[in-house]
Amino acid sequence: MSIRIALLGAGIMGADHARIVSGDLPGATLQVVCDAFPERAKAVADECGAADVAADPMAVIARRDVDAVLIASPDETHAPLSIAAIAAGKPVLCEKPLAQSSADCLAVMEAEAKAGRFFVQVGFMRRFDQSYAEMKAALDGGELGQAIMMHNFHRNVEAPANFTGQMAITNSAPHEYDVARFVLGSDYRSISVFQPAGVDGSQTGAPVFMVLETNGGQLVNIEINNNAAYGYDVRSELVGKKGAISMNAPVYSRLDVALQSVERYAPDWRPRFAEAYRRQNKAFLKFVETGVPSPIASNCWDGYCAAVVAEAGVRALAEGRKVPIEMIGKPAFYR
Amino acid sequence: MSIRIALLGAGIMGADHARIVSGDLPGATLQVVCDAFPERAKAVADECGAADVAADPMAVIARRDVDAVLIASPDETHAPLSIAAIAAGKPVLCEKPLAQSSADCLAVMEAEAKAGRFFVQVGFMRRFDQSYAEMKAALDGGELGQAIMMHNFHRNVEAPANFTGQMAITNSAPHEYDVARFVLGSDYRSISVFQPAGVDGSQTGAPVFMVLETNGGQLVNIEINNNAAYGYDVRSELVGKKGAISMNAPVYSRLDVALQSVERYAPDWRPRFAEAYRRQNKAFLKFVETGVPSPIASNCWDGYCAAVVAEAGVRALAEGRKVPIEMIGKPAFYR
Amino acid sequence: MSIRIALLGAGIMGADHARIVSGDLPGATLQVVCDAFPERAKAVADECGAADVAADPMAVIARRDVDAVLIASPDETHAPLSIAAIAAGKPVLCEKPLAQSSADCLAVMEAEAKAGRFFVQVGFMRRFDQSYAEMKAALDGGELGQAIMMHNFHRNVEAPANFTGQMAITNSAPHEYDVARFVLGSDYRSISVFQPAGVDGSQTGAPVFMVLETNGGQLVNIEINNNAAYGYDVRSELVGKKGAISMNAPVYSRLDVALQSVERYAPDWRPRFAEAYRRQNKAFLKFVETGVPSPIASNCWDGYCAAVVAEAGVRALAEGRKVPIEMIGKPAFYR
Amino acid sequence: MSIRIALLGAGIMGADHARIVSGDLPGATLQVVCDAFPERAKAVADECGAADVAADPMAVIARRDVDAVLIASPDETHAPLSIAAIAAGKPVLCEKPLAQSSADCLAVMEAEAKAGRFFVQVGFMRRFDQSYAEMKAALDGGELGQAIMMHNFHRNVEAPANFTGQMAITNSAPHEYDVARFVLGSDYRSISVFQPAGVDGSQTGAPVFMVLETNGGQLVNIEINNNAAYGYDVRSELVGKKGAISMNAPVYSRLDVALQSVERYAPDWRPRFAEAYRRQNKAFLKFVETGVPSPIASNCWDGYCAAVVAEAGVRALAEGRKVPIEMIGKPAFYR
Repeated sequence: MSIRIALLGAGIMGADHARIVSGDLPGATLQVVCDAFPERAKAVADECGAADVAADPMAVIARRDVDAVLIASPDETHAPLSIAAIAAGKPVLCEKPLAQSSADCLAVMEAEAKAGRFFVQVGFMRRFDQSYAEMKAALDGGELGQAIMMHNFHRNVEAPANFTGQMAITNSAPHEYDVARFVLGSDYRSISVFQPAGVDGSQTGAPVFMVLETNGGQLVNIEINNNAAYGYDVRSELVGKKGAISMNAPVYSRLDVALQSVERYAPDWRPRFAEAYRRQNKAFLKFVETGVPSPIASNCWDGYCAAVVAEAGVRALAEGRKVPIEMIGKPAFYR
Repeated sequence: MSIRIALLGAGIMGADHARIVSGDLPGATLQVVCDAFPERAKAVADECGAADVAADPMAVIARRDVDAVLIASPDETHAPLSIAAIAAGKPVLCEKPLAQSSADCLAVMEAEAKAGRFFVQVGFMRRFDQSYAEMKAALDGGELGQAIMMHNFHRNVEAPANFTGQMAITNSAPHEYDVARFVLGSDYRSISVFQPAGVDGSQTGAPVFMVLETNGGQLVNIEINNNAAYGYDVRSELVGKKGAISMNAPVYSRLDVALQSVERYAPDWRPRFAEAYRRQNKAFLKFVETGVPSPIASNCWDGYCAAVVAEAGVRALAEGRKVPIEMIGKPAFYR
Repeated sequence: MSIRIALLGAGIMGADHARIVSGDLPGATLQVVCDAFPERAKAVADECGAADVAADPMAVIARRDVDAVLIASPDETHAPLSIAAIAAGKPVLCEKPLAQSSADCLAVMEAEAKAGRFFVQVGFMRRFDQSYAEMKAALDGGELGQAIMMHNFHRNVEAPANFTGQMAITNSAPHEYDVARFVLGSDYRSISVFQPAGVDGSQTGAPVFMVLETNGGQLVNIEINNNAAYGYDVRSELVGKKGAISMNAPVYSRLDVALQSVERYAPDWRPRFAEAYRRQNKAFLKFVETGVPSPIASNCWDGYCAAVVAEAGVRALAEGRKVPIEMIGKPAFYR
Repeated sequence: MSIRIALLGAGIMGADHARIVSGDLPGATLQVVCDAFPERAKAVADECGAADVAADPMAVIARRDVDAVLIASPDETHAPLSIAAIAAGKPVLCEKPLAQSSADCLAVMEAEAKAGRFFVQVGFMRRFDQSYAEMKAALDGGELGQAIMMHNFHRNVEAPANFTGQMAITNSAPHEYDVARFVLGSDYRSISVFQPAGVDGSQTGAPVFMVLETNGGQLVNIEINNNAAYGYDVRSELVGKKGAISMNAPVYSRLDVALQSVERYAPDWRPRFAEAYRRQNKAFLKFVETGVPSPIASNCWDGYCAAVVAEAGVRALAEGRKVPIEMIGKPAFYR
């Protein structure tokens, strides 16, 4: 019996999810594509063979021919749609962020806890990436000794026109907050934010550099550089007392020409994390089928943690000082 | 309407195919798993959720609830099963080799031509690998200038106990013959085979080194080294008049420990070509659905070409001299 | 007419300098090796064919058969010996640091300025390293656009038993302060220091992570990790608005064995910077011969700058906050 | 007492040798630069501070103020000048080839044997390259197990206008013959030569591919591609029964720009082998000083071996077949 998935949001991310559901997930059916722009919903539905299109996500969530929901609509809709899905008893794969504030994350968590079972998987897909998996395995397997530091770099070719340093902290960096926390197995206790001077934080694509301290005593350094120009490039290195492990972004060929040996960068994130998205969505399907959440995937608590860090980061940027990260105690439901 | 696939052969390759069909191919159903050993068929069927098991491949091919056939049974069965599938009007994805001799390949071709449409896709999956795709694109796009040489290396950790130099030529090297021919777009006209002295060709896992000349004037060099010990490692470089392009086998991390910086090899081919198999099998599914063969995939003619080269290679090894490669003219059906 | 060089200090660094002078510097003679331990002086003098040994560095500086002085004695002697050499009118290649405090650096600068010509080259040899030269050339040539950030990593296998986080800031990091300042062409205005928690700064080899802001608005990040265990490893990346350039430490071979592809690290700095030391010492010889300082080499002003940064870094570590870096105006003599 | 060296030949190679002698060899003096073109001799002498220039190499060899001779004059002069130096009792560093035929090599060997001591070091500088040293150490140290194959690639940007495939065999490939023989510790017994069709062997820069069999049972494969266009690129891999080791040409930086990650090739051999030349010439100086030949360097016997292989290679190319390599027994003098 195929799982009937409703896709909420048919933008770039939504269309990619539609392709994965229809092209890579045996056992799933792309039942309905919902978007405020009907032509966008229709284009994705046609390309991916969805049975139906719709415009009202709340109505879609309620449909009896929908078993699960994939939220890829604008950020401000994530929390209310997740809560609606929980209320309807339907599992959710929610693109990051879970919500636009930690308070809103708490609201989703409360809804989930009240419902008494897990419904929401948050789309921090990097946890499913092979590189991070190997880094985590090296740490957990003892090859590195005790973790000391983690260096993380996120570079994009070009940021959207309205992108600020604050948005780097709230929109781009949460992937880093989550995956470093996942790899290290530790929460954060402080964040400091630096910005190249003369690069006004309100300007387009302002890069930021963050130093986070974890409860486990590690440093997590994060460069977010959304106007790096040269290519989409995510790097990470985990340094332990006995050794270190670095991400190798997979490259498939090397071209020798004109006195150069060249490996190519992609202009966006999709080739780099295509396999991670596939694995993530397969894990979500299994979660829907079995009711057992993936041990790897992020849940609402993880979504909340990322939101708290982002909020502290915004303050650290504004105030030019190290800001403590204060989280609620982990609710019993998420332990 | 899902395509119902019968898997013939539930060994290592067959089990991998079953996993792909059941785990990565929406639109396909693993209908029946057939193997001479019932418990092997059952194990694969259970793991991958196949509806049925069977022991007689001819009977399976004839079943009305089977739409297409995936042949992963022993080499000597490939040709007769392919011919049976053609006779039954069912598309075939046949693991390489298409047949154990070029004469048997011709028999399959004749059956197919007589049937008047394409039925058989041969499992030279490397054509779907991203590295070879990038190499071919660089050549076709003019970045390399005219092709001059191609260097190919196939290394395995350990060969089966009965593996001879002749088997390296007939069983391992056909992947290289096919993919180099695919990338270069040219057939072969001669083959020379060299073997490290003191490594008797009848001995286990004897390495061979081959130099092939193409009709396009290129050299294609192939090392087959099935007892390379250090890891599964396939490499390729294409050299043109303006530049060269090399395969980069994707690696996901790099470990620094004990005065070493380490990247790991897998012990077998599966991680390296997992994505190529997936793409290949998706192309097969599309072929079944549309009746239009993949423009990338190998067909019977390609299977024949590989067989002819292997036969010449065996003679070149035995006679210690360059042997011409003589093929029939390409039948009109395959042009 | 060969330049007669007196080597002051015959420890590890001194012995290496003796080898360079005697083995790589045509036009130079290792005239005398001076060390408080006579047997150490003698061992180096014998190995490198020095004419004489001595124990009193002040007397050596005064000798008429000494044309120039190479200081590789303990840190606390650097400033007084440099001042003595200036007084004797003899050029000095002084191992870093120039002095143990910025105040002492100023004293050497005053002596030099008073003498009215340049006498002292400071041994920040990384400026002569090919990697940094290529990084600087890429920046100066406009390939990177405006510089934004520089990431620097210094890792040693094992620190001496008494090595503290403070020493990482004062003894190891000055190489980084100097070379980043050289590459960027900008002085520093603040420093922040972070340390993995639970790694007490007074403990052996405590790693530190520093974020420096330059007057040019760049961030310079520095990891000093003297107990990195896995190998001697210096890395650097310079990030600009149009692109980035990374150091590739040269490696000469790659070993494939036991499911690993291995490149080796050296256990100490010598192989990595052997060529930089040779180039530095050749530049010093040319300086002695011509009286014109190398445009690349560090002088007393550069030595002072590094000392000021180190002092601010120590305060930043102790006080747990960002500390401004306050330097005197650049004296006319050094402009 | 400085060794007074006469440089015979002030072309590109000669000028490089002059720079090494004057700039990197304490203990050596560039006494006289000799070239048929006086202005060329003068230019090199002026740049490198040679005491004198000359035009007649035989007269130079005879000069009492010359202790040793460095031959970098045209190939046809190598043997007669070497013989003259032997007759004059003066050690020789002779650029490769030792002679233009194996017969002429024998004449030099006879002169040397008759003189009763070693005089000639042949300029196969690759033996002093760090990469080959590490490859040889890995083999000799047992890390690779028994050697099976060696793959060698020699690529130049552009060949001189008159360069033929035959010249690739006689002029470029001897470096490969010698260094592979040095690493493997085995002589050759056959050679086969292949050439991309349509690339006439008499044409400019025709690439060749050679397969050599050694007495130790290994295959040595050599690509000579002097019009490779993309850069100067020498590669080598040694494959053993337990593992393999590959040359890593040292690279000092990596530039990320315009969707590319770029490492640069040099347009000629000089950066790649600068250090090997320095080491070679230092070894020669030590040989002159001590009378004991370097255990690494090539001698006349090695020069003869390379010449024999080249001659067999020319025949193999002309006759299109595997040609046996027949050498005289190794004279007692060279054992």
